[in-house]
Amino acid sequence: MRLAILLFPGFTALDAVGPYEMLGQLPGAETLFVAERPGPVTNDNGNLTLVAEASLDDVTDPGIVVVPGGPTARLPLTPGPVQDWLKTVDAGTTWTTSVCTGSLVLGAAGLLAGRRATTHWLSLDHLAAYGAQPTGERVVIDGKYVTAAGVSSGIDMGLTLLGRIAGDRVAQSVQLLTEYDPQPPYDAGSPEKAPADLVAEWRARQQEIMNRQAR
Amino acid sequence: MRLAILLFPGFTALDAVGPYEMLGQLPGAETLFVAERPGPVTNDNGNLTLVAEASLDDVTDPGIVVVPGGPTARLPLTPGPVQDWLKTVDAGTTWTTSVCTGSLVLGAAGLLAGRRATTHWLSLDHLAAYGAQPTGERVVIDGKYVTAAGVSSGIDMGLTLLGRIAGDRVAQSVQLLTEYDPQPPYDAGSPEKAPADLVAEWRARQQEIMNRQAR
Repeated sequence: MRLAILLFPGFTALDAVGPYEMLGQLPGAETLFVAERPGPVTNDNGNLTLVAEASLDDVTDPGIVVVPGGPTARLPLTPGPVQDWLKTVDAGTTWTTSVCTGSLVLGAAGLLAGRRATTHWLSLDHLAAYGAQPTGERVVIDGKYVTAAGVSSGIDMGLTLLGRIAGDRVAQSVQLLTEYDPQPPYDAGSPEKAPADLVAEWRARQQEIMNRQAR
Repeated sequence: MRLAILLFPGFTALDAVGPYEMLGQLPGAETLFVAERPGPVTNDNGNLTLVAEASLDDVTDPGIVVVPGGPTARLPLTPGPVQDWLKTVDAGTTWTTSVCTGSLVLGAAGLLAGRRATTHWLSLDHLAAYGAQPTGERVVIDGKYVTAAGVSSGIDMGLTLLGRIAGDRVAQSVQLLTEYDPQPPYDAGSPEKAPADLVAEWRARQQEIMNRQAR
């Protein structure tokens, strides 16, 4: 089983590395970070660079694809090499997955039409525009399409999928070895739980960005 | 405030990237990945490479240092450039931190003697050998020294420290934007919670590795 994790300029690092630490432990799997061109790919904040070992052309038959997200303005949402690659390899994958706004990339490739899916809470409306049925769940499995909510949810997605593929015991081992027994110091990790004024502030900021992009 | 995240060959990626996504959002902070030499640094599994932008010599005055962990055999625990750098910069840091077995690296630099600290659950005895007082807590703050338990606990450490430095509202914003509302599909993330036979199995494997190293 080959696990291909897509990188593109402006990706969010934890979206890629969270599922990597979980799914990358799949017995017998080979993990490849893949990008339009091999070499360094820098993240959304501009200060973390991962190296893609393979180009899209090098990876024709991944069993699992993971698409991370990033700020919407920087996502590969238009027809081009990334969209072409996703459409092509999806025909042969066992699992096609995304974290955060990575589901918008899958949506723009036409892969989520009519499917239940999720994305970062600030982009749920955007996801619907691709014909997907957005849900508020943290990890959504619809057939072979597995989408996760914002950034850190990729860890839950990766562990969930690891269990589906390799069984509970392997997944529990990985959870134990990564000491994934989360104890966040606040309870503000979703729009339902965070202070309402904070949620409103970020919704307004996002709207401002969307308006600026539309102009 | 400069945030320096140390990389060394064999580091665990999530140990570095978890705290990065939290602390890297500190308003006004500049984040630098630093290694003995600038350039690509490959992780414990050998299939994920991060790029260090700076050498140890380039970074003389970080306000915060984060030391990730990795398999104990590959940690920089012996006198050398990493240990020298840690001892030198620690004299000027506001916070000196570690994730997972990164605390052994701090311990070997003599920075945790007499302090409460933690590490990966499989290495707690090892930590005591450096004069630290190991605890079973997930994030331990003793003065300016902040140590976290295994791998994923670096996210909790980063968010906790972000709140201490920048206030609750900034930390809650980052929690909300990273949707850090964890929902692990299993409850096996600590030796107290995982199936006992799984814990015993990994303790035996770790002992075997230690015995092999000692021979």
